Amino acid sequence: MEILMDADRLNAFLATDFPQVADGCSIRSVAPDKLVALLQIGDQHLRPGGTVSGPSIFALADVAIYCAILSRIGPVALAVTINASIDFMRKPAAGRNLLAECRILKLGRSLAVAEAMIFSEGSAEGVARCSMTYSIPPKRQ
Amino acid sequence: MEILMDADRLNAFLATDFPQVADGCSIRSVAPDKLVALLQIGDQHLRPGGTVSGPSIFALADVAIYCAILSRIGPVALAVTINASIDFMRKPAAGRNLLAECRILKLGRSLAVAEAMIFSEGSAEGVARCSMTYSIPPKRQ
Amino acid sequence: MEILMDADRLNAFLATDFPQVADGCSIRSVAPDKLVALLQIGDQHLRPGGTVSGPSIFALADVAIYCAILSRIGPVALAVTINASIDFMRKPAAGRNLLAECRILKLGRSLAVAEAMIFSEGSAEGVARCSMTYSIPPKRQ
Amino acid sequence: MEILMDADRLNAFLATDFPQVADGCSIRSVAPDKLVALLQIGDQHLRPGGTVSGPSIFALADVAIYCAILSRIGPVALAVTINASIDFMRKPAAGRNLLAECRILKLGRSLAVAEAMIFSEGSAEGVARCSMTYSIPPKRQ
Repeated sequence: MEILMDADRLNAFLATDFPQVADGCSIRSVAPDKLVALLQIGDQHLRPGGTVSGPSIFALADVAIYCAILSRIGPVALAVTINASIDFMRKPAAGRNLLAECRILKLGRSLAVAEAMIFSEGSAEGVARCSMTYSIPPKRQ
Repeated sequence: MEILMDADRLNAFLATDFPQVADGCSIRSVAPDKLVALLQIGDQHLRPGGTVSGPSIFALADVAIYCAILSRIGPVALAVTINASIDFMRKPAAGRNLLAECRILKLGRSLAVAEAMIFSEGSAEGVARCSMTYSIPPKRQ
Repeated sequence: MEILMDADRLNAFLATDFPQVADGCSIRSVAPDKLVALLQIGDQHLRPGGTVSGPSIFALADVAIYCAILSRIGPVALAVTINASIDFMRKPAAGRNLLAECRILKLGRSLAVAEAMIFSEGSAEGVARCSMTYSIPPKRQ
Repeated sequence: MEILMDADRLNAFLATDFPQVADGCSIRSVAPDKLVALLQIGDQHLRPGGTVSGPSIFALADVAIYCAILSRIGPVALAVTINASIDFMRKPAAGRNLLAECRILKLGRSLAVAEAMIFSEGSAEGVARCSMTYSIPPKRQ
């Protein structure tokens, strides 16, 4: 399937349209079968003890999946998350950024399903697994 | 079941131990069958158009459920979320704070399950529904 | 909101249209805010040791939520589950039927969200909690 | 990681210990990174119109994930599902068996997380995606 927005365009879109939500997140690469997003860890993402907080991991997964869908349908549509399921599996490695590898499982006319695996940069073991369903509004004529 | 931490103690705990995660969240009331948490909306919680972002709603649910568990087991234990499922059902009302009403469904020795319904303040229709499973570490002797 | 199908009509519908899926399930009562469904336990629902199997509990929740939606929109529409999240919290009591108490949280034009709590008959502690999202097809003219 | 039970041993275990739950399910192959399970479609799995029912798909995912865990820890342990999240993405192809491809994401001392993708045999597009968390009881000395 065609990629309508590459990493540069998605990052520009995040910077202008989602500055708060994107907080620390950016898109590293977009390929037909995988999008990779990065969470640059800052103090605002940490729990006591230096672990990245659950909501920060959720936010990374949300940005990754949202951008994966936009990469296919373009920036016009206003997709909204209707459901998310997330498993927190391992403590993120201290002092490392997080990566989300996202894959679209279904891209229908009105619903999209995608999943993201979250890793500490440089580690192969998953920190978290997240799947989300997005509602895609009908195209305006 | 006995309440070991009331709203004042939980808020003091959030302020000292979870300043970043709690960002805007506080506990309004704790009763045996229901904890109510508040998200004071700030610019950092908003998506374009003035809607509260999904990750901010997730963070509110996480704080509410975490505090509901602490209210029963006390501040010592280091409970961690192992799973969360969230349904985003309606757009939050513009310019209103969000409330989370949380109920513990199971409080076992090693696992707790709770759910939270999120509302715009002053509205009876749910913005989101969230359930979470927490792992509770064994007591130190 | 108006109830378009009561328990008798829903049971007749299950018997004629969903004999396999309904296997042992029936609707006990339908009220504006709660539907109650029953799973009459048979050998086919049991795991070794006499516990009701997870898939049987899932099937009960699915029938309960499906019927709760049909009770509001009538038997014409072909609603399909698009997402389910289920927490298995306690072992069902041996030799008891299961009840599902179902509540609709959102009934939109194209999406419905509902949750069900599953109990062993005669017990107040939840065996499982389930939430589901259904897609409701557009009305035919 | 070592495989303690191969497909033959898992199928023998299902036949003796889980005859009802396994109803139509069998294990086709077990490799270090992937278990494949099969649901041989029978009348009892069908909804009106000939589609495989949601609970039947859930049962297949449950058997696949359960066996994937047993393949690693052996038949002694009594693992139980504590949480499941499932996305139904596409209608199964009529008259085709279903396959579940299962991958273990975490195998800890007390918790395991795995996911399964469900396909109609001969099709590359996913019918459903399911993730589950299992609780693994402590080893008896």
